[in-house]
Amino acid sequence: MNFRVNGMARDTVPVLDRAVQYGDGLFETLRVRDAQPEFLGRHLKRLDSGCQRLRFPAIPWPRLAHEVAELASQLPHAALKIILTRGQSGRGYRFDPQQAATRLLALAPLPQWPADIPRHGIRARLCATRLCSQPLLAGIKHLNRLEQVLARAEWDDPGIHEGLMLDHAGNVVEGTMSNIFLVCAGTLVTPALTACGVAGIMRSVILDLARQCNLNTEIRPVTLQQVQNSSEVFVCNSLIGIWPVNKIDGLAEYPIGRVTRTLADALLGYRDSDEDNWYPT
Amino acid sequence: MNFRVNGMARDTVPVLDRAVQYGDGLFETLRVRDAQPEFLGRHLKRLDSGCQRLRFPAIPWPRLAHEVAELASQLPHAALKIILTRGQSGRGYRFDPQQAATRLLALAPLPQWPADIPRHGIRARLCATRLCSQPLLAGIKHLNRLEQVLARAEWDDPGIHEGLMLDHAGNVVEGTMSNIFLVCAGTLVTPALTACGVAGIMRSVILDLARQCNLNTEIRPVTLQQVQNSSEVFVCNSLIGIWPVNKIDGLAEYPIGRVTRTLADALLGYRDSDEDNWYPT
Repeated sequence: MNFRVNGMARDTVPVLDRAVQYGDGLFETLRVRDAQPEFLGRHLKRLDSGCQRLRFPAIPWPRLAHEVAELASQLPHAALKIILTRGQSGRGYRFDPQQAATRLLALAPLPQWPADIPRHGIRARLCATRLCSQPLLAGIKHLNRLEQVLARAEWDDPGIHEGLMLDHAGNVVEGTMSNIFLVCAGTLVTPALTACGVAGIMRSVILDLARQCNLNTEIRPVTLQQVQNSSEVFVCNSLIGIWPVNKIDGLAEYPIGRVTRTLADALLGYRDSDEDNWYPT
Repeated sequence: MNFRVNGMARDTVPVLDRAVQYGDGLFETLRVRDAQPEFLGRHLKRLDSGCQRLRFPAIPWPRLAHEVAELASQLPHAALKIILTRGQSGRGYRFDPQQAATRLLALAPLPQWPADIPRHGIRARLCATRLCSQPLLAGIKHLNRLEQVLARAEWDDPGIHEGLMLDHAGNVVEGTMSNIFLVCAGTLVTPALTACGVAGIMRSVILDLARQCNLNTEIRPVTLQQVQNSSEVFVCNSLIGIWPVNKIDGLAEYPIGRVTRTLADALLGYRDSDEDNWYPT
């Protein structure tokens, strides 16, 4: 692996960094394709919205974008993680609003998944760990991820590739590391993320693709029964793209249907326009 | 400041440590008094219960206790923070259950508070940031602390020493860095922490002291109106001990009453028995 801390080749952070002390930070996981960071503009825009929500100081966006591009150039296909932390501060939860953020980058080989997933889909399960409702943090990709850690620890079977998480009302929100889409009576549906969940970059790409493909889309609360009655289900994130869901243990089995195939095909050739690649300056 | 990482004099952690990546860890803040860690047994027992809740691997408790005592011996009066992280692991939320935890220690001078707080009490406020309900994490002192960071960022007035946090039902749970007690019709009441909040060590000491002083105690949900109608209110943590609350902005003012004085006096001379100082082995 290859690391940068504020642009320097380093792989450690101070114990006093607020990411260590409080999980006080944000992250992004990007796919590197042909030595370029994919959907960089969208990732930086989401980081910017997280920074505003957490009241981070100004981020040197062009410098960060340059550091990301430089690191991505070192491997043709890879996973690149950006972490922004609130840097160091004195003892206690109070932070200095002038303190510059710390930029951490890590480049790793792309994880290896079974080659037949696009054709056969994955097996998923329902997690017992529920997502708590916290509108102040919903949607952003912050570093407080113990719920996901606990949910992912619920299973050990390598044949299960994702766990679905419910909120306290029992609605389906997302996977431990992915967003979920379902096809209900021909409409592409993905859960609303106003109280919990991470508004994924691949989720936003797929919603754009669906509109380009003239699919009806809905973003709304999704019950377990609606998932059960769906004709197609898939999960997505920036690294895996689209994974069709073939089975949710104890709930339902699904074919790999027309909508999933259409979107997966459309995704293959999709690149953002220059406008989408704008990033905050 | 003075640091230890797994017993060595170091002040950095790897970027890949799960505390940095996910806030995957626990912490304790101890008061060092006469170069000794105060209530060490209680702190280690709470860490142990947090480790069980988060499914941490076995911790070398005697070694940790030794490292804490050694570091504490370097300053007569100080704040000593213990952080246990789940160490490093591969990419993703999944963890290796065999991976040893990382022990981080930091010794800092005791913060300076106004000398008249014990006599005059503090001014507090109500925070708009609510605590989410997550029974899986309630009570333990984990590293996912963005709610406290956001709550503490709500005010800047140095005359306000604590902010009280409510849950989503509007019940009072705790301060941003303290637990709260109130006196209702002669009974000492502190909020139940089954859905959110940190079960503080000083809170447990005070509950023990109250029983020794033959005070009635109750642990139960506490409404804002009950706080408003209390005859006495105080907050507590391991560093500050007991801080009487003189005023909660927009809610009520309180005298520094008999129960608060009795407990503060009792705390001055209080030391745990050897039995309380047992720690997990």
